Amino acid sequence: MEESWVNSAERIGADLHLELFEPGGRRASLIRALREAVRSGRLAPGTRLPPYRSLAADLGVARNTVADAYAELVAEGWLTARQGSGTRVADRAEPLRHAARTPIKAPLRARGPLHDLRQGAPDASAFPRAAWLVSYRRALQQAPSEVFGPGDPAGRRELREALTEYLARARGVRTEPERIVICSGFAHALRLLFGQGGSAGRNGGGGGHVGGGDDGVLHGPLAVEAYGLGFHRGLLATAGVRTVPLALDADGARVGLLERERGVLLTPAHQFPTGGPLHASRRAAVIDWARARGTVVLEDDYDGEFRYDRKPVGAVQGLDPERVIYIGSVSKSLSPALRLGWMVLPEQYVDDVLAAKGEREAWASVLDQLSLADFILSGAYDRHVRRMRQRYRRRRDRLVEALAEHAPHVEVTGVAAGLHAVLRLPPGTERSTVKAAAWQGIALDGLAAFRHPETTMRAVDGLVVGYATPSEHAYGAAVDALCGVLPPGEQRGPSTV
Amino acid sequence: MEESWVNSAERIGADLHLELFEPGGRRASLIRALREAVRSGRLAPGTRLPPYRSLAADLGVARNTVADAYAELVAEGWLTARQGSGTRVADRAEPLRHAARTPIKAPLRARGPLHDLRQGAPDASAFPRAAWLVSYRRALQQAPSEVFGPGDPAGRRELREALTEYLARARGVRTEPERIVICSGFAHALRLLFGQGGSAGRNGGGGGHVGGGDDGVLHGPLAVEAYGLGFHRGLLATAGVRTVPLALDADGARVGLLERERGVLLTPAHQFPTGGPLHASRRAAVIDWARARGTVVLEDDYDGEFRYDRKPVGAVQGLDPERVIYIGSVSKSLSPALRLGWMVLPEQYVDDVLAAKGEREAWASVLDQLSLADFILSGAYDRHVRRMRQRYRRRRDRLVEALAEHAPHVEVTGVAAGLHAVLRLPPGTERSTVKAAAWQGIALDGLAAFRHPETTMRAVDGLVVGYATPSEHAYGAAVDALCGVLPPGEQRGPSTV
Repeated sequence: MEESWVNSAERIGADLHLELFEPGGRRASLIRALREAVRSGRLAPGTRLPPYRSLAADLGVARNTVADAYAELVAEGWLTARQGSGTRVADRAEPLRHAARTPIKAPLRARGPLHDLRQGAPDASAFPRAAWLVSYRRALQQAPSEVFGPGDPAGRRELREALTEYLARARGVRTEPERIVICSGFAHALRLLFGQGGSAGRNGGGGGHVGGGDDGVLHGPLAVEAYGLGFHRGLLATAGVRTVPLALDADGARVGLLERERGVLLTPAHQFPTGGPLHASRRAAVIDWARARGTVVLEDDYDGEFRYDRKPVGAVQGLDPERVIYIGSVSKSLSPALRLGWMVLPEQYVDDVLAAKGEREAWASVLDQLSLADFILSGAYDRHVRRMRQRYRRRRDRLVEALAEHAPHVEVTGVAAGLHAVLRLPPGTERSTVKAAAWQGIALDGLAAFRHPETTMRAVDGLVVGYATPSEHAYGAAVDALCGVLPPGEQRGPSTV
Repeated sequence: MEESWVNSAERIGADLHLELFEPGGRRASLIRALREAVRSGRLAPGTRLPPYRSLAADLGVARNTVADAYAELVAEGWLTARQGSGTRVADRAEPLRHAARTPIKAPLRARGPLHDLRQGAPDASAFPRAAWLVSYRRALQQAPSEVFGPGDPAGRRELREALTEYLARARGVRTEPERIVICSGFAHALRLLFGQGGSAGRNGGGGGHVGGGDDGVLHGPLAVEAYGLGFHRGLLATAGVRTVPLALDADGARVGLLERERGVLLTPAHQFPTGGPLHASRRAAVIDWARARGTVVLEDDYDGEFRYDRKPVGAVQGLDPERVIYIGSVSKSLSPALRLGWMVLPEQYVDDVLAAKGEREAWASVLDQLSLADFILSGAYDRHVRRMRQRYRRRRDRLVEALAEHAPHVEVTGVAAGLHAVLRLPPGTERSTVKAAAWQGIALDGLAAFRHPETTMRAVDGLVVGYATPSEHAYGAAVDALCGVLPPGEQRGPSTV
């Protein structure tokens, strides 16, 4: 039998899909099929064709038939054959494909700004490639085979165990691996909790609903901080969840105003974006509210690792693990490219969240999960966080110093933690300052971009300045450019007003 | 300033969250906070504490204060100190945590069956660890910094380019990188197309809807093959999409029966689970239907790489890229652990799918995306697919031979491709055979498990036997066990009937 011949040929070469339907002999129909594949553009210039014997075995034709066909097409100019590089589609084989169709424009990627001072992303140049590769290699080599089969929707137990220990030690979270569910990040967690994950940001509907989506683990209305991420509010709106703004003051969200909402979403360690921690008395009060009303606190611990002073702000979750859903990710501490986050859940929600996640869908890459477990347990995560904490603290200090020198009238707030600061501006100057910054190639947002549309809080003018995104060498210039566009301090209104 | 001291201390040690609120001196309050962290179970036995100077710098206390506190707790038995291993939480420090609470049971994982002949997963022991690591390392080392920043919702361009070339060459798909959107797998693609991705499998509602979910890119009713994956039907039902069964015959789905459905979901290369390819005339006919009615064909190319005969079955997408949404993944070819799939879209759907995916959510791990691009371009993907094709073909042959010898009355079908076969059984024997198999520790499904509840097709009895899941050494025993539970061929009904 030719089976052994097939087997050896199978080991080499690449797959090439060809349909030899036409009459006229195998050689002729192979030539026609190959020519058509090249002419139509399906095989792009430079594409390497499989070796003769491999394609011959695949198609069940003689080796010489393939060799003849290749030679013919080389002669016609469709293919090129070069010693050592095999047979390839010729560069000058002009593709005719889609001649009648308008070419698709590459999506308009905004060209990066000159100075990127938007909040939200860590310093991409600081990803610990070498240390991560060590963990990845170890995870890949030590993984039992079942790792490569269907995954556990809760996520790998190795990672849930590592997180249990790490979050307890570093963030004061009290939990156990059975109550952790791995996800792709905070937005994925919101989708799992409130349902309707497929279509964020397009419909924007649901603002009129009161009960919220009927497919979520949780239901609205949900209290949110009066300043927060519009992206999250949009996700919730798409899920049919009404968000009710909760005013802020110097002690953080005014949780005493909570009433009949079905839950509250807070950033207790570092209010986003205004920057203060939630006062201890309010931490206790919000737990009391959740207990009394049988509701739940969603704790978004988005940058809890980055605290620069010595007043520790642990997770509210530690006060009552049955009343808080704690959500974190590596998006700020390592990179959003990993798509890894976690939910620490009260017992009553675990099964529903797992059901929402779907039995067949692990979502997060299992190898990345194992790598992160190793990265945490080996101490590499702590080392990286501490190294980045130093770097970001230096950047914060530099920003504060530059402002003290060049714009002493601009108050800097929210700088005890995190990857961004808030610069308070004179009333009425925010919009023009953001615009002036954009003209100078500085990307940043004003506070208005984060304001809940329904809040009645008095608006203050300010800039949200992220200091993590620029690379180390570009940061100084970005700060200098920022100082150049801030409104002057001695500014007086027209004397007639 | 002590900044330099902080900086050097920051480089070492791990984070430990402690709140020193109480009066009574720093040493006493540190001891109390540490003791409480251990006693409450927040710090698990074996947890390593940070070095003195690191914790001292973090808390702003003298190094001796930390050393004294550690020594006191070692003396009390809460901690242990050993040369070279630092200070750790003692093993015998019995945690009191959650004493009053019922412990959560680990979720009931069904113990693996003795012989796993379910379809759906590749041989997990065959993941090409070494080759994958080569690609991962190269991708990680060569990645520009921006890779670690916020991702493109379409997926990395490197991967979309590699897929464009690969799918054209190996599957006859005609596309360009701008029309490919990377996702986490087929189920994620369905969620992106039909909306409501957060809550599959819990509500099951929507069966009464006609129009389908109002948040999807596509809308129902959707025609599906009369036999298919119930998991997919469930996802669609949750999204509010009604599925209409399309009868099958020897030439595949009877697309001539399509009427006013808004789209059709097909497995043209290898009907799942019955196993035949869609006949060429029907491939053309379904495209004609989609053109005439302005609808779309969803092509699930779940195992297109694994074809064992020489009749090539390319993608239907190649017939009309503007009328077919082609969906594939590495879940069968490499591993479901990677969570990587792709959608090849008609131009008109690209923007909506990207919007559904969400501007902030790349979903699939970016490093895995880059690794797969390298894996494809380096030829490693072709090599792996060809190696696995050989392996699965041998398994198929072994199954066919064993059945010919031990159960010649059982017809084997659908074996020209894929990772599973269908065994036709005598009428009325399917259910008892599946049960008998379960008693012998053999996990497999009967055809009934895949049948659309509303189809009027005549039911046939059969087993769906996956031959990919067992590891190489366990496969022979699994086939032998299977032969032992098949119904006998000479069986006669009671003579009175």
